[in-house]
Amino acid sequence: MKYLIPILLLSLACSSPKEDNHRALVFMSDFGLEDGAVSAMKGVAFSVSGKIRIFDVTHEITPFNIYEAANRLQQVARYWPKGTVFVSIIDPGVGSARKSIVLKTKSGHYFVTPDNGTITLVADALGVEQVREIDETRNRLPGSASSYTFHGRDVYAYTGARLAAEVITFEEVGPEFKQDMVRLKIPVARINGNVLSGMIPVLDVRYGNVWTNISDSLVKEMQVKPGDKLHVTIHQDSVLRYEGDVPYAHTFDDVKVGEPLGYINSLMNFSLAINQGDFAARHQIGTGEQWKVSLSRSK
Amino acid sequence: MKYLIPILLLSLACSSPKEDNHRALVFMSDFGLEDGAVSAMKGVAFSVSGKIRIFDVTHEITPFNIYEAANRLQQVARYWPKGTVFVSIIDPGVGSARKSIVLKTKSGHYFVTPDNGTITLVADALGVEQVREIDETRNRLPGSASSYTFHGRDVYAYTGARLAAEVITFEEVGPEFKQDMVRLKIPVARINGNVLSGMIPVLDVRYGNVWTNISDSLVKEMQVKPGDKLHVTIHQDSVLRYEGDVPYAHTFDDVKVGEPLGYINSLMNFSLAINQGDFAARHQIGTGEQWKVSLSRSK
Amino acid sequence: MKYLIPILLLSLACSSPKEDNHRALVFMSDFGLEDGAVSAMKGVAFSVSGKIRIFDVTHEITPFNIYEAANRLQQVARYWPKGTVFVSIIDPGVGSARKSIVLKTKSGHYFVTPDNGTITLVADALGVEQVREIDETRNRLPGSASSYTFHGRDVYAYTGARLAAEVITFEEVGPEFKQDMVRLKIPVARINGNVLSGMIPVLDVRYGNVWTNISDSLVKEMQVKPGDKLHVTIHQDSVLRYEGDVPYAHTFDDVKVGEPLGYINSLMNFSLAINQGDFAARHQIGTGEQWKVSLSRSK
Repeated sequence: MKYLIPILLLSLACSSPKEDNHRALVFMSDFGLEDGAVSAMKGVAFSVSGKIRIFDVTHEITPFNIYEAANRLQQVARYWPKGTVFVSIIDPGVGSARKSIVLKTKSGHYFVTPDNGTITLVADALGVEQVREIDETRNRLPGSASSYTFHGRDVYAYTGARLAAEVITFEEVGPEFKQDMVRLKIPVARINGNVLSGMIPVLDVRYGNVWTNISDSLVKEMQVKPGDKLHVTIHQDSVLRYEGDVPYAHTFDDVKVGEPLGYINSLMNFSLAINQGDFAARHQIGTGEQWKVSLSRSK
Repeated sequence: MKYLIPILLLSLACSSPKEDNHRALVFMSDFGLEDGAVSAMKGVAFSVSGKIRIFDVTHEITPFNIYEAANRLQQVARYWPKGTVFVSIIDPGVGSARKSIVLKTKSGHYFVTPDNGTITLVADALGVEQVREIDETRNRLPGSASSYTFHGRDVYAYTGARLAAEVITFEEVGPEFKQDMVRLKIPVARINGNVLSGMIPVLDVRYGNVWTNISDSLVKEMQVKPGDKLHVTIHQDSVLRYEGDVPYAHTFDDVKVGEPLGYINSLMNFSLAINQGDFAARHQIGTGEQWKVSLSRSK
Repeated sequence: MKYLIPILLLSLACSSPKEDNHRALVFMSDFGLEDGAVSAMKGVAFSVSGKIRIFDVTHEITPFNIYEAANRLQQVARYWPKGTVFVSIIDPGVGSARKSIVLKTKSGHYFVTPDNGTITLVADALGVEQVREIDETRNRLPGSASSYTFHGRDVYAYTGARLAAEVITFEEVGPEFKQDMVRLKIPVARINGNVLSGMIPVLDVRYGNVWTNISDSLVKEMQVKPGDKLHVTIHQDSVLRYEGDVPYAHTFDDVKVGEPLGYINSLMNFSLAINQGDFAARHQIGTGEQWKVSLSRSK
C-alpha cells in the first residue's frame, strides 16, 4: 500500500514508454522542395506537438496527377506501421466544394486528403474501416480562415498532426462521410487464352523501368518461370510502341548489362527493364490508361 | 516524508516532460541535396545532441540569391513554434570579413546566418529583439579551424545546434552586435489614385504562379471584391511583358481550367495564376526589382 | 529497503536517459526522391523502432555510380557520431551473388551495404574494425522473401534499423566476413619534382567547383602559400582540357567575382573554382580516373 503513491506518480511523470508509440506523420504532395511550402506544413505539425515523427512519401508528384499519387501511396503505405497518419495533398480543386476527408483503413492506417480519388488504391489494398469528413470549424489552423489556397498547411497538416499526436481522436475529425468517396477507374489485368493483358500505371522513374499492373500471381497462373522467353508488346492506344522477346529473369544480373528483361518488381508486379539501362527512354514509353501491355510465351 | 526520496529520484531520472520542449533546428541553404554537404551539417548538429529535432526550409535556393532566400524564410518562419532555431546558409562571402550573427526576434525565433541581408524580411515581420555576433573562438566545431570554406558546417550548424539543444544560451553566442545588420532594399507596394503598384519577389515555382508584394489589405483598400475584373500589366523595367484582364477570384476553381485569375496567396499577397496551368512560363515572367506589376479595375 | 521497489520500477519505466543515446540511421542511395522507394525503406526502419532517428546522405547518386557514392560517404561519415549506422544502397548487382555486409570501423561507425566497393574510402579513412556478412535467414523483413529486386528495403533498411535500435548486436548481423571486401582502385596524388599530380574524384556539383584528390598537406609540402600563383593543367586522358594560372587563395573573397582560384575545400583537398561562377561548366570538366590534374608554381 505504501508504495502506491510513488508508483502512481511515476506512471504520471514518466510518459516515455508511451513515447515509443508515437505515430509517424507522413507527407505527400506535388509541391516540390524548391520553396517553403512543405516546410510551412511541417512547422504547423511540429507546433501541434514536438513529439510526432515527421516523414515524407515524396513531394515530386507531377502537379495535379492524382493517378500517379494513388500509385505512390500504394507503393509505400503498407511499409509504415499501424497508426501512421498520411497527409496527401494533390489538390487541383483547392478552395472548391470538394470535401476534405480522413480514411481509416482496416490495417489501422489513416489518410488525410481531399476527396479526389488519391486513396483509391490504398482503400482497395488495405480495406476501408471508416471515412470521416474534416469539420473545418474545429480542425483548422487558428487564424488561417482568411486563406483559401493552402489547405495543405491550414487544414490537412494541422488535422493530420493532431490525429498523429492524439490531440484528437479519429471521431473528432468530424462526422462520418456518408456519401461515396471519389474513386479512380483502375484498369485490371487479365488472362485471355495465352495472352496476359495489362497497362502501365507508373515508371520506376529513376532507372526507366516500366512497371505494369500485371501481378506476380497472374504470371504464375500462366506457368511462366524464370528463364522462359516472353513475347511483349506495348501499345499507346492503338499504336505499337514496342515489340520484342525478353527473358523472364529472376534478377537483373541474369542478363548482360544493356540487355532487356522481364521481372517481378518490389510491388510484386511484372516489369520491364534494361540491365543498367533505361527501357522507358529507349522505347519512349509513357504511363496511364492508354498504355497497354501484353505478354505471351515466345514461340 | 518517506516518499520524498523516490519522488526526488523520479524527478531526476525522468527528463521526459522537458523533452517535449525540444526546439526544432531548421536548415536553409543553396547547397542542393545532390552531395553530402547538408548531411555533414546535420551530422554535426546531431553530434551536439541526439535530442534536437532537425528539419529543412529548402536547400534549393538559387546559388547566392539572398533576395530569394529572404522571401523563402519569410514564407515559412512564422509557422514554426517560438524557440525554433533557423540556420540559413546562403553565403557568397564565405571566408571573407562578413560577420556571423544570430538574430532573436520578438516572436522568439532565432536565425543563425552570415550578416548579408537574408533575414531582412523576417526581421521586419517578426521584430528584432536582439542581434549577437557569433564568437568563433567559442562557437566553432572543434578541430575545424583549418577549413575556411564551409562555415555552414563548422560554425552555423554547430552554433545553431548548441542553441537549439540549450547547450549555450543566446547570450553565450557572443557579444551583442552593435552595428547595423546588412539589409536588402525591399520595394513597397502602393496605391496611386486608381492603380495599385508593386513588384514580383518570387514565383510559386512549381505551378508557375506569380506572387506579388501587393498585400491583401491594399487590395481591400481599393474595394476590389471576388468576382470583379482586374486590369493587370507586368513590366520588366520599361518593357511590357503582360497586359490582360483577369477575374479576381476567391479560389482557382472559380475559373475554368486553363484560364487566368488573380487571387490572394498563402502569404496573403495578390498573385496571378492560370488554373492548372503555368502563368509564369506562358508569359515568361521573372522575379526581382525590375519586374513591376500594376492593377486597376477593368473598364 | 522499502524504497527498493519503487526505485526498481522507476528504472524500468524510465528509459528516457538511454534515449539520448539512440543511434542515427543514415540512408544513401541512387533512388532519387521522385517515387516512394526511400519512403518505403524509412517505413520499414520506423516499424522496427519508433525511437531511431532517421536521416539521409543523399539519394541523388548517379545510378550505379559506386565511385561517386564512395566519395559522398567519405565526405559525410566522420561528421556523424560514433554508433551511427549508414545504410548505402547503390546496388547494380541486386539479386546477384554479390554479398551483403556490415562494416564496423575503428571509429565506431557502421556501414550496411552490398559488397561492391562503396565503402572503400571510409574503410581507409576510419579503419576496419570488423566486417560481417548479413545472414538473410535472420535479417530480412518478414514476408519479403519472394521479392528479389528491392534488398534496400527488405534487407538493408531492416538490418540497419535493427542494428541502430539495438534489437540486434553487431555480432547478430551474421558471421564474420572472411574474404576480402571488394575495393575500388583509388588513384593517389603525388609530387614529382616541382609538379603535383592528382585526379578529379567528384565535383561540388551545385557550384561547379572542381575537387581534386590532392591533399592540403601535399600542397604544403610544395611550400605553396596563399597569394602564390599556380600553373594548372587538366587533361582528360591525353587531351588537354584546361591550362591556366590561378591564385592560390585563402577564401573565395580573395579574388573578384568571376575570377578563377585554387583553394582548399571542406575535405581539405585542393580545388578549383570561379568566384560565384561555375568552373566545371565553363571548361567542361568531368570526373573519374581519366581526369588528371597537375599543379606547379607559375613562372
